[in-house]
Amino acid sequence: MTDVLLQPGDSLRRLREAKPLVHQITNYVVMNETANATLALGALPVMAHAREEVEEMVVYAGALVLNIGTLSPHWVDAMLAAGRAANERGIPVVLDPVGAGATAYRTETARRLLDELDITVLRGNVGEVATLVGVEAEMRGVESIGAGDDAAELAREAGRTLNVVASVTGPVDHVSDGERSVAVANGHALMASITGTGCMSSALTGCFLAVNRDRPFEAAAEALVAFGIAGEQAARDAKGPGSFHVALYDELAALDPAALDGRMQAQ
Amino acid sequence: MTDVLLQPGDSLRRLREAKPLVHQITNYVVMNETANATLALGALPVMAHAREEVEEMVVYAGALVLNIGTLSPHWVDAMLAAGRAANERGIPVVLDPVGAGATAYRTETARRLLDELDITVLRGNVGEVATLVGVEAEMRGVESIGAGDDAAELAREAGRTLNVVASVTGPVDHVSDGERSVAVANGHALMASITGTGCMSSALTGCFLAVNRDRPFEAAAEALVAFGIAGEQAARDAKGPGSFHVALYDELAALDPAALDGRMQAQ
Amino acid sequence: MTDVLLQPGDSLRRLREAKPLVHQITNYVVMNETANATLALGALPVMAHAREEVEEMVVYAGALVLNIGTLSPHWVDAMLAAGRAANERGIPVVLDPVGAGATAYRTETARRLLDELDITVLRGNVGEVATLVGVEAEMRGVESIGAGDDAAELAREAGRTLNVVASVTGPVDHVSDGERSVAVANGHALMASITGTGCMSSALTGCFLAVNRDRPFEAAAEALVAFGIAGEQAARDAKGPGSFHVALYDELAALDPAALDGRMQAQ
Repeated sequence: MTDVLLQPGDSLRRLREAKPLVHQITNYVVMNETANATLALGALPVMAHAREEVEEMVVYAGALVLNIGTLSPHWVDAMLAAGRAANERGIPVVLDPVGAGATAYRTETARRLLDELDITVLRGNVGEVATLVGVEAEMRGVESIGAGDDAAELAREAGRTLNVVASVTGPVDHVSDGERSVAVANGHALMASITGTGCMSSALTGCFLAVNRDRPFEAAAEALVAFGIAGEQAARDAKGPGSFHVALYDELAALDPAALDGRMQAQ
Repeated sequence: MTDVLLQPGDSLRRLREAKPLVHQITNYVVMNETANATLALGALPVMAHAREEVEEMVVYAGALVLNIGTLSPHWVDAMLAAGRAANERGIPVVLDPVGAGATAYRTETARRLLDELDITVLRGNVGEVATLVGVEAEMRGVESIGAGDDAAELAREAGRTLNVVASVTGPVDHVSDGERSVAVANGHALMASITGTGCMSSALTGCFLAVNRDRPFEAAAEALVAFGIAGEQAARDAKGPGSFHVALYDELAALDPAALDGRMQAQ
Repeated sequence: MTDVLLQPGDSLRRLREAKPLVHQITNYVVMNETANATLALGALPVMAHAREEVEEMVVYAGALVLNIGTLSPHWVDAMLAAGRAANERGIPVVLDPVGAGATAYRTETARRLLDELDITVLRGNVGEVATLVGVEAEMRGVESIGAGDDAAELAREAGRTLNVVASVTGPVDHVSDGERSVAVANGHALMASITGTGCMSSALTGCFLAVNRDRPFEAAAEALVAFGIAGEQAARDAKGPGSFHVALYDELAALDPAALDGRMQAQ
């Protein structure tokens, strides 16, 4: 973690003061979940996908989050339009390439969004990011299998070749802008027991970006630190995936900025 | 509250006996939430949006709830068709103009629904209702900012000029048919900490309307009293937005009709 | 239950080892819920509905679940395409005909899916299945009313005439392939207090089918046994529909394969 100064507590404090709008064009499965995670953290979600309105809506946003989890052509058009409008105004854009590698449609759509838009942070699992970098990866549906040791190198490679901050999440998360890299070990295994935690981490990345336009690499890592710590807290009294899911929102809201830096596991 | 007789307990008792169907064409983000709130209260939700079937479905409903939270053209067509069929049969219609004022598409769609349909109750926040009345209001995404003192006057103005029962929710809710007005102070700040409580209040308004066709003004206020009391109860042991959200369904189901009138804070 | 050997514990054990992908094209209201129930049980959900990708995605799946809860024409096309691709490869297909009987569009779509596809298990309530068999049934929206005594005969009739395993759920569930039949009494009344438990039971049926291709009749019943036992457990400390809903995921994850057969109530 040479040259990297993460300050998740300071970012969270500023986020809660600014309460930035985070415009999310995301999948049907997790819309409620990412909106509630955004609110619990302290930002304001706005969910709007109509081609007729996305360019107008994104103007008010501190960040735009594009998630291809349940694609269809109209939605891709809206993502491109919103992304272009965000790029014109310097609004940071997060891309969550859910299921890239699982079907050609998802892979091509993710590539197209990367090509046609200036993506600030690419937040995905190993299989998704490997697909977009052009590396072989084993996928099962939208889940990625195995990996681990090479995830750090994959993040670096993605950062370098795709001209993004790559945020590759897994048991340990790896964030890289191609030059600098950081591994984030916060989190809990129960986070993989519910659907949408990956999507939530993309939404929260958008929240942190909204108050850190000049330091997207750090913001992407700080978002994962904060989310991971909330996950650790939520796991303490959880009886299973249902009660963990509920506690995750409680703990996002309860995150204490003053305690975040001390609990950060990043190197 | 001159001339206003609210009887939320009696309405809830009749609702649970009649178990009316409440047809909801609503947004992707909150569909599960409004359906579960409807069930918890004691009514039956039916979620159907296809242009091919909405006119057939709404015939069986005690009320129709239209919510523009995640719009697209096909959905607007279906809302208009369902609304016309409801109007022909005297089935009350609730409109939730989510985000009116935030984008032209939402504002125009809300206006079009108000123009082309006979809307019984317009349930929105200050910014949304102000937009539709033609008053300036500060919006952030789909959230309305500030307001408060003028909300009572806004509700009266909306009731008078839009020919609806206006139900303007916020820290204190204001319901008016343009002549009579009532302020409802039940509720809890945690209700603003999760997404979809506004949409839930629209769904519950539909439930109360379904058993109160001849007194829509009272029903709109009674729905907010009942929802507010459930929110107060849910807040008692909540640790944050996640556990509050869960308790809200428990408390809607646990609402005791015999206790509602005594806990009502309306004037 | 002549000639029927149910082994839900063994099936669950194999399911958790194999972790099969279960491809679900389902309705907006319950997507998150069925995905989380699938994960909690121990399988992997994949939610993909775009015509552009469903044939490619279903190839990796151990089962396909088609649910018509919120229909529109594009989705029907995708269901047919995915179903054909599944049929070609011998991948079992579950059909949940949500609301068949409530509108012509739903009834016709369910019939079309039954006609054009080889459906392995038809999982519905009495009203839905009766409609598809051609028997009179009283419906309210997507809920079926009354029935009960004739449900066993209805399941047998559906199994015989529709060439499926019919899984007719209610206070007591009846599963039949037209020759053999079994009644499953596991479950709890609170399961009817939240939306999506029917849809969850279809998703879990897909999970059990994925590891039981050669015994779909038994798998359909075993899924209901497992889900019912999780419901019984979840009801123990539930305060209402909200806390029951949360506990349901906890208890699906906590299901002990070694205890399932002993707690099974099937005859």
